Amino acid sequence: MRLEFYDAERRFTLCRLKQYMKQEADILTRAQAGEERYSGNLGWLHVDEWAGEEKLREIETCAGRVREDGEILVVIGIGGSNQAARAVVEALSCGGPMKILYAGNNVSSQYMKQLLKQLEGKSVYVNVIAKNFETLEPGIGFRILRQYLKERNGTGYERRVFATGTRGSRLHELCRIYGYTFLDFPENIGGRYSGLCNVGLFPAAVAGMDIRAMAAGAGDMERELRNTKGEENTAFQYAAIRSLLYQEGFRVEMLASFEPRLQYFYGWWTQLFAESEGKQGKGLYPTAVKYSEDLHSIGQFVQEGTPILFETFLDIEEQGDAVSVEADEVEDGFDYLNGSSLADISRAAFEATVKAHSERLPCIRIRIDELNEYSFGQLFYFFEFACYLSGKLLGVNPFDQPGVENYKGYMFEALGKYKYRSESNGEN
Amino acid sequence: MRLEFYDAERRFTLCRLKQYMKQEADILTRAQAGEERYSGNLGWLHVDEWAGEEKLREIETCAGRVREDGEILVVIGIGGSNQAARAVVEALSCGGPMKILYAGNNVSSQYMKQLLKQLEGKSVYVNVIAKNFETLEPGIGFRILRQYLKERNGTGYERRVFATGTRGSRLHELCRIYGYTFLDFPENIGGRYSGLCNVGLFPAAVAGMDIRAMAAGAGDMERELRNTKGEENTAFQYAAIRSLLYQEGFRVEMLASFEPRLQYFYGWWTQLFAESEGKQGKGLYPTAVKYSEDLHSIGQFVQEGTPILFETFLDIEEQGDAVSVEADEVEDGFDYLNGSSLADISRAAFEATVKAHSERLPCIRIRIDELNEYSFGQLFYFFEFACYLSGKLLGVNPFDQPGVENYKGYMFEALGKYKYRSESNGEN
Repeated sequence: MRLEFYDAERRFTLCRLKQYMKQEADILTRAQAGEERYSGNLGWLHVDEWAGEEKLREIETCAGRVREDGEILVVIGIGGSNQAARAVVEALSCGGPMKILYAGNNVSSQYMKQLLKQLEGKSVYVNVIAKNFETLEPGIGFRILRQYLKERNGTGYERRVFATGTRGSRLHELCRIYGYTFLDFPENIGGRYSGLCNVGLFPAAVAGMDIRAMAAGAGDMERELRNTKGEENTAFQYAAIRSLLYQEGFRVEMLASFEPRLQYFYGWWTQLFAESEGKQGKGLYPTAVKYSEDLHSIGQFVQEGTPILFETFLDIEEQGDAVSVEADEVEDGFDYLNGSSLADISRAAFEATVKAHSERLPCIRIRIDELNEYSFGQLFYFFEFACYLSGKLLGVNPFDQPGVENYKGYMFEALGKYKYRSESNGEN
Repeated sequence: MRLEFYDAERRFTLCRLKQYMKQEADILTRAQAGEERYSGNLGWLHVDEWAGEEKLREIETCAGRVREDGEILVVIGIGGSNQAARAVVEALSCGGPMKILYAGNNVSSQYMKQLLKQLEGKSVYVNVIAKNFETLEPGIGFRILRQYLKERNGTGYERRVFATGTRGSRLHELCRIYGYTFLDFPENIGGRYSGLCNVGLFPAAVAGMDIRAMAAGAGDMERELRNTKGEENTAFQYAAIRSLLYQEGFRVEMLASFEPRLQYFYGWWTQLFAESEGKQGKGLYPTAVKYSEDLHSIGQFVQEGTPILFETFLDIEEQGDAVSVEADEVEDGFDYLNGSSLADISRAAFEATVKAHSERLPCIRIRIDELNEYSFGQLFYFFEFACYLSGKLLGVNPFDQPGVENYKGYMFEALGKYKYRSESNGEN
């Protein structure tokens, strides 16, 4: 993974960037060691802790049981509980025998009805993922789906349920009572940092993803980022550039790529930065665009709108086998493309976009060799570590999310929850 | 459709809003009449011009030919050429006999290969939509798909091709040469305003949508907005509030709803405002969130991040038949929901979110009775008219998009287009 920075208008000099990184070097050093004060949230920092050989083997064994006769796995979870797995699965699985569907991530009747329709006549398994099992959406989703499984499969349906939660939670208790398979949601990992543990790896393994490659990518990135000092450290470069751009008045970071398969990765990335940094009245608003489609939409604003944006391009260098544009008998206005492959055309569009946009706004380019499990592992770790650094540079705690509680209070009041119980712990 | 505004911190008084609307009343009056200077772009202003009885009948006839023996319609178009149809179809069609797929909206090999795989063994029709037929993506998509159709179906494949373009364009010429069915892309409608003409209505009709209800919704909204004066006019209220919030320093408008089916409507709305207003260094950055999912992501930033956002809620009041939460034998922590329907829960979550968010940021609520073809017609017209007013208040031309051309120059150079031809007209 390589990082480049373009800034035609020189909002800050390379010299200032280096100076800033030197001045804040302590933040990198302390993050590399893992700070004591965040020890309850740094379970992701050492990939081996939750994605080492033994854990991977356990996950593969459980996933194997599902893959034996399963046709559909419904992943029940919201926010950090499903984003990483969904990012990988929706990008890389192309119509294998095992289908992954998602529930517990909204409160739409329509959505639930359509989901249940898709399950008809299939061999269905469920993986409910909820750290504290206090959040409404997965609670409802799990209730409806376990009732569905029980009704369809009768006694013995329990083997179809895998629950990922923390020990001592109500979910853990339900596993004991009913005999569901329990998987640890690490106490020391928050939802948005949970790609490389049971939370992200189990559904990915069920979908047939190579989770060893994911772990290897994350592990390699961990070693690189832990061993690279100061201004050579790419995650620190990224965090420092974002920080200086924020200081220069930029307020929106736009993640961009020409790879439609990254759609759900965008969701993961957006949550990571929105929850980690959007506090104390601070933070860059994270947003993402699907090029080339969005060049015909947001593109206008990028090029000429209010100058509050900078852009971070994910550049996937290898496109794999490509479709070519074959000549046609009649000139249709596109003969200049005859013989070109879509990969060549996509490359030209990418370079042209970086060139045009970087004439106006600061642009970061992150180069990745190709899109596979290994690179997803790299990307998850890279951005998590960068986000840790970035939050520190901003002066906020990158691991809490106090603001997601506000609406819950009003909602629980309206739904009469407090008649039942009085605690209300956030889950993200 | 009703509009409400919440602003706990009173960034501006109701009195100031009324004063501002009075002061700018001329903008409304002139838009209601349709300004001469924009006459080349106001084909959407009178719904009857391109979606009157005669046009609807033509569209239904053409759509009927596809529906007779078609199983898949591939819509080839990008930006304004596919957004409106996709918004309606993806929200309302639930697994009918006719499937709509989309091509020509990216340059991904992977995407194209998966698309072609889905066509295997099916009766396929194609609707290519391109105003000037200069844009790369639909050009490539159409080339590949018509070659595919020809190879699969041999002579006679031509009846499977419907081309929506302007008269005199290369696309029109290809229709003459090959015998494809030609549909008018109105010269006086830009892509992002094209939902209520052949562009949006033909694919919608093929998908089995009630296009007469769409036209009725748009027509009713047209009459309401044309006949309602000054401060009572909801589109003018919306435009004026956005404008004052922009003046107060807000830079991002976030469209929000709890309806997952609005996903592609978000894309349509985003393009409408990004291209209409993002120019001359001005404009609100348009973005959209899917609640409740994004409450567990962007929600933190909304509640506590940099205060540059305001929020526009789409409130769909009627949810239809709802799934209920049934009691379970063991207490799982969610018994306070027993007997509630997802519609009730969704309503509680919606109200709680508006309440919590409006304590911190300005919020607009737009109430819609229910989600159907009629309300999509209303929404399209409402936002188009409001965008016209809003662009005028901002002092920009709401109908051009000069900024989307920049990257194209570099791209065409790299791809050697200029060796073939020298003109380059934008298409959006």
